[in-house]
Amino acid sequence: MHVHFALKADITFSNEIGPDAKAAVEGAVKEANEKAFAKGVPKGVAPEEIGRITVWDVEENLLFLGIESGGYTRAHDALFRFRKIIAQALGKHHLGLREIRVREFQVSLAGDIPETAIPRIPFIRSMKREEGGIRLDLAVTTQDLENRVPDRIVKLIEEKVQAAGYGGKTEHWELLSESPKRERVYTGNPTEEMEKRQWIRHGSSRGQWIYGPQPVQLFRAFASIVEEEIIKPLGFSEMIFPKLDTWDVLARSGHAKGVYPEIYYVCTPKTRDPGFWEDVADYFKVTGEVPVEMLRDRIDGPVGALCYAQCPSFWPFVQGRTIANASLPVKIFDRSGTSHRYESGGIHGIERVDEFHRIEIVWFGTVEQTTKLAEELHQVYTRVFNEILGLEWRCARVTPWFMAQEGMVGACGCESVGTTDYEAFLPYSGAWLEFQNVSVNGDKYPKGFNVKIQSGEECWSGCSGIGLERWTAAFLAQKGFDPAGWPAAVKNRVGTLNEVFRFL
Amino acid sequence: MHVHFALKADITFSNEIGPDAKAAVEGAVKEANEKAFAKGVPKGVAPEEIGRITVWDVEENLLFLGIESGGYTRAHDALFRFRKIIAQALGKHHLGLREIRVREFQVSLAGDIPETAIPRIPFIRSMKREEGGIRLDLAVTTQDLENRVPDRIVKLIEEKVQAAGYGGKTEHWELLSESPKRERVYTGNPTEEMEKRQWIRHGSSRGQWIYGPQPVQLFRAFASIVEEEIIKPLGFSEMIFPKLDTWDVLARSGHAKGVYPEIYYVCTPKTRDPGFWEDVADYFKVTGEVPVEMLRDRIDGPVGALCYAQCPSFWPFVQGRTIANASLPVKIFDRSGTSHRYESGGIHGIERVDEFHRIEIVWFGTVEQTTKLAEELHQVYTRVFNEILGLEWRCARVTPWFMAQEGMVGACGCESVGTTDYEAFLPYSGAWLEFQNVSVNGDKYPKGFNVKIQSGEECWSGCSGIGLERWTAAFLAQKGFDPAGWPAAVKNRVGTLNEVFRFL
Repeated sequence: MHVHFALKADITFSNEIGPDAKAAVEGAVKEANEKAFAKGVPKGVAPEEIGRITVWDVEENLLFLGIESGGYTRAHDALFRFRKIIAQALGKHHLGLREIRVREFQVSLAGDIPETAIPRIPFIRSMKREEGGIRLDLAVTTQDLENRVPDRIVKLIEEKVQAAGYGGKTEHWELLSESPKRERVYTGNPTEEMEKRQWIRHGSSRGQWIYGPQPVQLFRAFASIVEEEIIKPLGFSEMIFPKLDTWDVLARSGHAKGVYPEIYYVCTPKTRDPGFWEDVADYFKVTGEVPVEMLRDRIDGPVGALCYAQCPSFWPFVQGRTIANASLPVKIFDRSGTSHRYESGGIHGIERVDEFHRIEIVWFGTVEQTTKLAEELHQVYTRVFNEILGLEWRCARVTPWFMAQEGMVGACGCESVGTTDYEAFLPYSGAWLEFQNVSVNGDKYPKGFNVKIQSGEECWSGCSGIGLERWTAAFLAQKGFDPAGWPAAVKNRVGTLNEVFRFL
Repeated sequence: MHVHFALKADITFSNEIGPDAKAAVEGAVKEANEKAFAKGVPKGVAPEEIGRITVWDVEENLLFLGIESGGYTRAHDALFRFRKIIAQALGKHHLGLREIRVREFQVSLAGDIPETAIPRIPFIRSMKREEGGIRLDLAVTTQDLENRVPDRIVKLIEEKVQAAGYGGKTEHWELLSESPKRERVYTGNPTEEMEKRQWIRHGSSRGQWIYGPQPVQLFRAFASIVEEEIIKPLGFSEMIFPKLDTWDVLARSGHAKGVYPEIYYVCTPKTRDPGFWEDVADYFKVTGEVPVEMLRDRIDGPVGALCYAQCPSFWPFVQGRTIANASLPVKIFDRSGTSHRYESGGIHGIERVDEFHRIEIVWFGTVEQTTKLAEELHQVYTRVFNEILGLEWRCARVTPWFMAQEGMVGACGCESVGTTDYEAFLPYSGAWLEFQNVSVNGDKYPKGFNVKIQSGEECWSGCSGIGLERWTAAFLAQKGFDPAGWPAAVKNRVGTLNEVFRFL
């Protein structure tokens, strides 16, 4: 997408810019336009594509500048390059650079850009359609320019135009492999059957279940299979990842680009002073109702979200650090708590819940190490699903939602980056359930959290989430509730089903 | 505390109250004052203490009533008893009772009541000091009276007067037993040492740590000791309790009476529609900052809190149910996730964190079963701390904060209800750290969640939280970091410390 930038700015100096100094400005402008702005620009780029000072003047202690550019040494980059040059040049005349004020900033983008591709953000003061494209008038400060706000706006519009072209499709699905068909021995809905047996009961929150002893025996049997067949043989070490993700973590992991409709938000009390809360407590004691509206005014944040993807909160452990080659690939896992997603409403079973339990496997190292380990995981999952659990499944390559959200679709071009989902057939509904994934995330996390490896090579990471609810939903849907029909590895691990509760 | 109630109310009927009907009212008032209001009142109670209609009149279709009482058949109870009588009496005259409107409601309380004991709630319209006490003018609806708002206000004021008398003390501490003194082999601060060794690192949130492989080996060693010495021999079965507690759960558990300064609040997105969130995402993509203020307007709730006490969210599993005698005592535990408390700020180690990991043991049954199991737990904890971990500890009976918060202090009179804390000596600070508790909670939870047992006997419950951070903090503070000096049961379970990460 062709782009054109035009800015007007005033630079304030500590004193009046006299005739000698004015001559120095002229020299600095010439140097900038002829040499400094051309640095790093590939040969053959047309001159009008490169940043240049098109107009300037001085008045008392102010230097007025007009800068234009195409995509090379963009107007704001040119401004900051010029800042260095002019500060040095006028320093010799005992004039100190005090402040830069941006008076105007315009971005023109060529192409057929729909209304929906214009971000609704306060930086965009107005938009005008002109021949062959649009022109945006931005309200930006010097600080905003240093934060590269105009570049990010351009990138965002490009992404939105591209996304509009997909027609709403966010996931590409491609079958990779599948298991043999299995005999149908059960056609019931496992959640309904577990409720009937009083093995599980709805929790008080949305999409939340309380699991009695019997399903937990199944969860633990699966966790033990994962430990013995995957974690130990492949050498993963247990860590504990936090379960409250601050915005800083979600910004670095990329989730802050689009996860908002699906997370549970966490807020903190404004103070621990009991006096501040006494009337809230009094209200409850008198009415038996928690005064939600009163609470809203007394909490800060949201400071972040409940664990959503499980691995992002690991990365601050290695943030800003360089890992020794001898430690690579790093192989770790976490099973210390719950994940939470604000799922769509309506009636769902344990296969689609707001609160769930997952063993999250994470690894990173060189590109080769990371892709090789993903391959090993695929081999072992295939063996576990075929030989140990005896499931009917298929395996597909998908472009995960977050890459779509982040405009990463098609950007990488690397065959090995992406997610592979394992799906199990559900006889009771005829649908397929994603119950397992293996993702190679490329340099997304190491880059976001500034993690380097000793060799200086590119660092890639991967993750694989083993959702215990999903495994249980898939297993019971295919194998039913009679342990006699279960594979020995599950039956033996579960042992006798533990009937703790008899209700009248 | 002596109490006096006075109310004025209008009862609206479907039609004009004619002379015959007026005579029927007179009869009903007489019946109420002489018979109905006296029902259930102990003998010897002075007549002015019992509810009575002191004045009445009719005008068109309205019946005006004035009712007064002391503490027996309180004015509002009398009003509802009279509602039944008058509805029946005037029904015979083809007059239907349409509505009751409360025009005035006054409560007088005798005694020296400080300003601070008056709840700051909208129901209290004004307060007046009069000889020997106070008079409150309440703004209440019939619905509020049915919800017993005046009674709850009186109870709350009584609690506040009582609490003021304690002079701020909320916990009574009484030594029960202690271990032998142990040789001092280490005087360092375990958190500082673990940070130095890069075993742990601050998470991105307040009071949150990321645990590397080595401390997790210790956590798992402790969990395995708990499993083999406590959970299996005493016959506890694993369940999974939810980790997001809605207000309904916290209301029933009693936590809603005072937990507000210490919880993490959870809010939900107003909608899952991505269009609703697009400008938030755009703002982040352009600035790299999550716009917290924009988020505040787009979330609902708070709907509840992150898991604070761990056991409350179990109780909906049995809510409203009656448990067979054969299932008693029910013995269960949960280790499925994190607990979160908004702790005081400042520098703390892993002994005082906002996010922590706990194995929560819960049991319930008859009073005898519940107290007996608490006794068994004390015996086994004593053995584990003395013989297996070799800790220096002491054990004290405390009145837990929630009982203080709920005005239960001194109310029960039962020796067996309450909490016993185990405290470990920390050589590096000279302080004692609570690292384990056993609580007998009486009928608090079964009553709050309406759980009954087959025999019809009173149902009591208990809980005991095993905090892995606290065990680790206590153990390392006393035993240090050289596994050669650790008790065999820990050393053997930990095995070789797993050095996954080498940093440059």
